[in-house]
Amino acid sequence: MDMHKESNGLETMRHSAAHIMAEAVQTLFPDARFGIGPAIENGFYYDFELPRALTPEDLPLITQKMREIIKQNLTFIKQDVSKDEARKIMSEQPYKLELLDEIPEGDNISIYRQGGFVDLCRGPHVAATGEIKVFTLTSIAGAYWRGDEHRPMLQRIYGAAFDTQKDLDDYITQQEEAAKRDHRKLGREMEIFTFDDDVGPGLPLWLPNGGAMIEEIEKLAKDMELRHGYVRVKTPHVTKETLFKRSGHLPYYADSMYPPMELEGVSYYIKPMNCPMHHKIFASKPRSYRDLPLRLAEYGTCYRYEKSGELFGLMRVRSMQMNDAHIYCTEGQFEQEFMAVIRMYLEYFNVLDIDEYFMRFSTHGEAGLGKKYVNNPEMWLKTENMVRKVMQANDIPFVEIADEAAFYGPKIDVQVKSAIGREFTLATNQVDFAQAERFDLEYTSDSGSKERPLIIHRAPLSTHERLIGFLLEHYGGALPVWLAPVQSVIIPVTDRHVAYAESLDAELKNIGVRLKVDSRADRMNAKIREAQVSHVPCMLIVGDKEVESGTVSVRLRNGEQKNNLPFADFKQVLHTAIVDKAKEIGV
Amino acid sequence: MDMHKESNGLETMRHSAAHIMAEAVQTLFPDARFGIGPAIENGFYYDFELPRALTPEDLPLITQKMREIIKQNLTFIKQDVSKDEARKIMSEQPYKLELLDEIPEGDNISIYRQGGFVDLCRGPHVAATGEIKVFTLTSIAGAYWRGDEHRPMLQRIYGAAFDTQKDLDDYITQQEEAAKRDHRKLGREMEIFTFDDDVGPGLPLWLPNGGAMIEEIEKLAKDMELRHGYVRVKTPHVTKETLFKRSGHLPYYADSMYPPMELEGVSYYIKPMNCPMHHKIFASKPRSYRDLPLRLAEYGTCYRYEKSGELFGLMRVRSMQMNDAHIYCTEGQFEQEFMAVIRMYLEYFNVLDIDEYFMRFSTHGEAGLGKKYVNNPEMWLKTENMVRKVMQANDIPFVEIADEAAFYGPKIDVQVKSAIGREFTLATNQVDFAQAERFDLEYTSDSGSKERPLIIHRAPLSTHERLIGFLLEHYGGALPVWLAPVQSVIIPVTDRHVAYAESLDAELKNIGVRLKVDSRADRMNAKIREAQVSHVPCMLIVGDKEVESGTVSVRLRNGEQKNNLPFADFKQVLHTAIVDKAKEIGV
Repeated sequence: MDMHKESNGLETMRHSAAHIMAEAVQTLFPDARFGIGPAIENGFYYDFELPRALTPEDLPLITQKMREIIKQNLTFIKQDVSKDEARKIMSEQPYKLELLDEIPEGDNISIYRQGGFVDLCRGPHVAATGEIKVFTLTSIAGAYWRGDEHRPMLQRIYGAAFDTQKDLDDYITQQEEAAKRDHRKLGREMEIFTFDDDVGPGLPLWLPNGGAMIEEIEKLAKDMELRHGYVRVKTPHVTKETLFKRSGHLPYYADSMYPPMELEGVSYYIKPMNCPMHHKIFASKPRSYRDLPLRLAEYGTCYRYEKSGELFGLMRVRSMQMNDAHIYCTEGQFEQEFMAVIRMYLEYFNVLDIDEYFMRFSTHGEAGLGKKYVNNPEMWLKTENMVRKVMQANDIPFVEIADEAAFYGPKIDVQVKSAIGREFTLATNQVDFAQAERFDLEYTSDSGSKERPLIIHRAPLSTHERLIGFLLEHYGGALPVWLAPVQSVIIPVTDRHVAYAESLDAELKNIGVRLKVDSRADRMNAKIREAQVSHVPCMLIVGDKEVESGTVSVRLRNGEQKNNLPFADFKQVLHTAIVDKAKEIGV
Repeated sequence: MDMHKESNGLETMRHSAAHIMAEAVQTLFPDARFGIGPAIENGFYYDFELPRALTPEDLPLITQKMREIIKQNLTFIKQDVSKDEARKIMSEQPYKLELLDEIPEGDNISIYRQGGFVDLCRGPHVAATGEIKVFTLTSIAGAYWRGDEHRPMLQRIYGAAFDTQKDLDDYITQQEEAAKRDHRKLGREMEIFTFDDDVGPGLPLWLPNGGAMIEEIEKLAKDMELRHGYVRVKTPHVTKETLFKRSGHLPYYADSMYPPMELEGVSYYIKPMNCPMHHKIFASKPRSYRDLPLRLAEYGTCYRYEKSGELFGLMRVRSMQMNDAHIYCTEGQFEQEFMAVIRMYLEYFNVLDIDEYFMRFSTHGEAGLGKKYVNNPEMWLKTENMVRKVMQANDIPFVEIADEAAFYGPKIDVQVKSAIGREFTLATNQVDFAQAERFDLEYTSDSGSKERPLIIHRAPLSTHERLIGFLLEHYGGALPVWLAPVQSVIIPVTDRHVAYAESLDAELKNIGVRLKVDSRADRMNAKIREAQVSHVPCMLIVGDKEVESGTVSVRLRNGEQKNNLPFADFKQVLHTAIVDKAKEIGV
């Protein structure tokens, strides 16, 4: 038995707070059964089996008990025990006994005690409960024992704990801000998308406002791709399994695919990716070096299987509309093509006000050649060098990570941070040496020889699902004018101003503005509030004065206001903001 | 036994020609087994089981034999026989014996003889073989006995037969013209679409030229729908079976759907139609009469199972991208909405130069109420009257057909004729009383009561597959300028004119023209021929004179030519033709 005097860093403090919470819960529920209670980023949690479901009202009671335990400044006491001793101590704790069973004979086993609470634990812990600084209990959630949906559902209490009150306050503010920006909340409030039980999990239905965003994003992509010499193709969502056997996705990738459909004795799959279809289009006629680079673009919808439990709003879905394209080029064209793709990424980031990102450049590992990686060391070095050079020449920040390339070549993943602070991959740009061989793709070179093209897979705008989810959070719902599903709301002050409002509506619709007249019987303030909540970029208030003078009173969502602006001027300003893809309208 | 002296109309003559062909085949192949040999539109056919496969070289030999038989002017002799006698006569003809078995006892049975040939046949026939006028054998095809893929495959010879040589010549010319316009041929030559064995039958891959057409058609539809107050949604291609059970498609429509996929114990289907998804979007929030009419549009891709043998180019496919929309409206709004849809059809027909069409108006049958049709006689009469009135008021030719409505309401099918002369349904416009009930769709009326909306299903532009297939044939490949995948080809006379050609190319691309510079080493005439074959609306030839004067020499696909037109003028003319959706450029 020895007193514990190890590290009292933040993590240790949080872990100890978990034990204190467990003691508090034990006081309130003497029959509690304990799962595990680790420190996590920003705080801690503990899983319990309790005689009744917890409610938010329980949290203040548990907090109160914790404060009492902290005030008592109880010592954390560590004790090394044998497995048998531990079993005896934990005899009424089935989850702990299960964990014990899994510890190999002969391993050190320790328990920690503070006050009346004892836990099977490796530590370390703070010296005494008084060392817990500021904390708060944040939420209750269900959690399967050991994350296994076939095991009992326990109740988890989450807490946050920090060294100073300021740190905690900052964290809470950040969490509140993140919650407000959560794309699931915004998506519901702004009527962007919905899910339906009869359709199924992970399969979003895009409501008209989401449809408008999709149209704008596709227009952006199509214009951009047209300017960059892409051509558009369209391929089915269903295919014989032969195609994915040829690509090598079957059988290895089958777990991430929807299961097959049997038709006339043939297995069909819905596609998890578009590449093999594009390769088939490349192969549909003899190609010459004069046809290259061939850039095939498609907003293809793909379907992948993700476990129900792993689905998350628009970020983790089963159906995804990809901003996909494949560039088939000669080796000599590769550098220029790859550079053009990277430049396109930057153009998009500029349009979408993304300035916090970095690129992760994944290269091969020598040991994996012929196993994890295509066995062509010369091409690996060559293309990796090319990619590195392009990135450096363009001053693009990137992190190089060895031994994480795709099977068929090096790749660039673009990492962004969502408002909730979670880093994720928005887009990817991959070099491919292998598929041309598998699909027997070739072109006739200028010397008449048959050559394999290099392939670049690229998706700068990710999928509609992930991009729109990200943009909702990125802008906190205040989407730039061109992208906002409703760009303006006209609010007539009384019924006699409706005709004027409708004439403005028609004029603006004529130049393609998405707007509506809110002529409901509600009070004007209620209408303004509703438009504010939906993050409509601007409201036009029209009353007697505006009707008389042919003006509008403009109220922007950022609070700016301008009264009695001549309508023609406003129309011009709005049009310019849309065409320039400005974030806000400047009046 | 009596000599046959009945009708010698065209059909009889053709039927007799079939017997003569059978006799000729019997002469050449004494072991031939005979299937059936009827008259058909434009001619006749006969199915044979033969000891070897026929080749096109056999047709002149058979034709020669037929001419000999005709020259002999053999009499067609009819003989009434008992079933037993017939069996004896046909004892070596298994197919005839099978047919005999199916004739009920006591029915009259007759056989026809001419020369050495005898056939089980009801007649009538011409009096003698000399009455056969002009004929030609056109093709050989495989045909399952009785159309059943589980029965033997026989060899079918087709012939055409007419009263005069002129009729036959006209028919052959028309066939040749139709063959030239066949969308499968044009689709290949113009690189519009392709099929791939690894992807599967009925699942077209749209090549870049097809992609360009799809983009233009979608742009047309989206602009039109925006102007008409539609909003766009986007729904997944995959759904739980629950959705189609609710809609009533399962289990009854299952034979026309792809089979299910089993995921986490749930059956998923790829959608054969978009309607239920749109209904779910309607149901995704409470609706008020102020939200109506709600017009939800989507280019949704649907998948239906058609037997391999029934697939036909783009006309009969398994994947279809539908110009779909559903209009939810009050009863009071119905007439105006339905009328607007019909007007939209006419607007499209105007753009697409479709003036040969008619509308088929299908109404209910009283006897089917509560069985084939929703049991709401009042609504049937009401909406049928409304539809009839709208059609008459707009002078739209239509044929009214009783007892052919959809289950849920009256419908209008738009019938067009393809270049091959086959009539088919291009688009459909349906009224729906039933689905709102099934999906529990409702809105709050202005008096506060809950009401069911009426639903209009409409798809004026059909599916991309059927529309593009039709348009290729309709225009014989010479698509109007706005729709042509390649709108212009610039042909520099020699290498030193390439730079000028490319500068024009860039200027035209800037205003969105799809074009290319043909700077290959080929002779100019070869390039012109190639552009002609691809039906490119115009070629620009640029040589010394054009470079010097900043002009172009324009050669239109219709043969018109204009030399040394100032480039700025041409650019304006081309732009106008595209914007106005003109069929040809006017220089």
